[in-house]
Amino acid sequence: MLLLTPGPVQTDPRVRAAMAVDIAPWDLDFRAEYAEIREKIVEVAGGTPGHHVTLPLQGSGHFVVEAAIRTFVPAGGAFLVPMNGQYAERIWRLASEAGRRPIAIPVPDTRPVTAQEIAAGFAAHPEASHLIAVVSETGSGIVNDPAVMGEAVRKAGRRMILDMVSAFGAWPFRLAEHDEIDAVTFTSNKCLEGMPGLGFAVCPADRTRERAGQAGSWSLDLGDVMLTAERAGWGSFRFTPPVQALRAFGVALELYEAEGGQRVRLARYRENMRVLMDGMTALGLRPYLAPEHQGPVIATFHQPPGPEAGGRFVLQDFVDALKQRGVLISNFHTTEAPTLRIGCIGAITPDDMRHAVAVMGEVLEEMGVLA
Amino acid sequence: MLLLTPGPVQTDPRVRAAMAVDIAPWDLDFRAEYAEIREKIVEVAGGTPGHHVTLPLQGSGHFVVEAAIRTFVPAGGAFLVPMNGQYAERIWRLASEAGRRPIAIPVPDTRPVTAQEIAAGFAAHPEASHLIAVVSETGSGIVNDPAVMGEAVRKAGRRMILDMVSAFGAWPFRLAEHDEIDAVTFTSNKCLEGMPGLGFAVCPADRTRERAGQAGSWSLDLGDVMLTAERAGWGSFRFTPPVQALRAFGVALELYEAEGGQRVRLARYRENMRVLMDGMTALGLRPYLAPEHQGPVIATFHQPPGPEAGGRFVLQDFVDALKQRGVLISNFHTTEAPTLRIGCIGAITPDDMRHAVAVMGEVLEEMGVLA
Repeated sequence: MLLLTPGPVQTDPRVRAAMAVDIAPWDLDFRAEYAEIREKIVEVAGGTPGHHVTLPLQGSGHFVVEAAIRTFVPAGGAFLVPMNGQYAERIWRLASEAGRRPIAIPVPDTRPVTAQEIAAGFAAHPEASHLIAVVSETGSGIVNDPAVMGEAVRKAGRRMILDMVSAFGAWPFRLAEHDEIDAVTFTSNKCLEGMPGLGFAVCPADRTRERAGQAGSWSLDLGDVMLTAERAGWGSFRFTPPVQALRAFGVALELYEAEGGQRVRLARYRENMRVLMDGMTALGLRPYLAPEHQGPVIATFHQPPGPEAGGRFVLQDFVDALKQRGVLISNFHTTEAPTLRIGCIGAITPDDMRHAVAVMGEVLEEMGVLA
Repeated sequence: MLLLTPGPVQTDPRVRAAMAVDIAPWDLDFRAEYAEIREKIVEVAGGTPGHHVTLPLQGSGHFVVEAAIRTFVPAGGAFLVPMNGQYAERIWRLASEAGRRPIAIPVPDTRPVTAQEIAAGFAAHPEASHLIAVVSETGSGIVNDPAVMGEAVRKAGRRMILDMVSAFGAWPFRLAEHDEIDAVTFTSNKCLEGMPGLGFAVCPADRTRERAGQAGSWSLDLGDVMLTAERAGWGSFRFTPPVQALRAFGVALELYEAEGGQRVRLARYRENMRVLMDGMTALGLRPYLAPEHQGPVIATFHQPPGPEAGGRFVLQDFVDALKQRGVLISNFHTTEAPTLRIGCIGAITPDDMRHAVAVMGEVLEEMGVLA
């Protein structure tokens, strides 16, 4: 099966093979493995060793995003969030239920937020301490660029938290150039091509230490994650982790380095995207985004007309027929208009994508959608 | 390597093998697998289908215990907790940081809480809505019996939440006989012998539905886990799960049924414990607990005298030497006095335990600890 999803993504067989073993996470050998993974991630983030620390957290992206908000925005505190996609709504809800006050920057889900919008938001809301933003929106495929946002945040003298879940490791980014960042969050199973089960935040150690104990949740306190990792005589993961996924993530990081790191990985994803875009537009499908706003992670296309509009396209039927041919795509959409979405990330190549496009063409023809 | 730990435990090769595969959790086939696992767990809990529901949560035992507290004890609400071990302290801290008010029932870590102590606690604290208790303490090895606690809680007209992390599936328990229970919590990697990465709560559906949205954390809201599982057209896991661990857990449940379920599994663990106790006492080690308080999950022994007392025992040296011989035990203790602890759970047999005892005897002799 070829997984063309926004995640969990297709993985390399060597990554998957690392899962089938029992591991004791508090064992001394494993502690060394854990420490090495934490150091490598600071490097992938372009952070400053000693100043920035990797803080892993069990669970999905939601958990680590909530943890970052709880850790760095005080209870009752306000922040800005550009509302251009489903994962922005996730930030909104996670923060609201945690007793923080999100303030929307309204942006359509078809384009990134601008520096002007951020500046205006902070000017109107002196009470907002942070900008908290999604970098790559897996709803639509747009990218809110950290460089653009970071500059606007620094000019306003505020702080920033980034949800880089579906971009980290592929999108150009150097944390060392972002003094304004309190946390950049991501998970094991997107562009770094590991298995699902772990979230990570990379944060400035001094800021994190200051905030320990103030998250209003022991489970979701990144400050406590850091203190536990640093505690003399412990140095292992805080609480029992999905330790097989952590070991597999170590293998995934080795493959990432061997491939050539961020630039080479991004180039592969971009080529996947180009093959997909060329193929799908040739089949008559219309991209949801203007080309200049299309990120490298996920492509969305307007769904062809369904029975309610006199057409023949039904998303689940399309997904089922693809699956019978060994290609798995997402069976739901989260954009403002109905779309179908196809991931370009994971251990897949442009040849895989050519194959997928051919298969999608066959299925659309069979459904009577083409012609 | 033979893992004799309180967890993650040794697993069956068939369970581990299920991990090495890519899975899309929102795929229709996987939804059926997920639904079946949820139903089977209600059965293992001895719950009432339709009335009780299984609510899985990504992460370690801490996460699901915090989620249960947040979901069923209102913000600012008080509850009783018998303080006879490390995991009771975990409940205390999780609840306090979440803005709930734990009230201690002081109990030494060498014996279970009594019905009288619970009755006295509720009499003294009419504001306490719940008893929240650890069943099997993996610090010392004692068991707070759900039958004893449940009766006392029902008499007092209050509610109960159980942390059954290290006992569920082995300790005799029928949720259907416990109208007073709001949640029984456990994880994938203890007596059910799955891989780590997932917590579970089994709860009455009606009570859970009432409490949705009141946890003060979207990530840790069991009410929302339930609403998501029941949502028409979704029916999958809420947020990306460590989906390989979930599939492996399905295999572990099949092996549990094939072995003969709770009674047979408990009998195997008890026999592991008997072999261990006989062997270790023959080596001159002194159990930490009186025999009548020794549970079937974990055994603790007083550490032989170390250099500070003129002896030769050093825990990490002992653990390292065992590991060289292929036996892994815990390298820290959490009891009031220094102990070494050995798990009797997981995919291990009395023969494995005989082997482990022989190896421990060799190492103790080499260290010069034996006579």
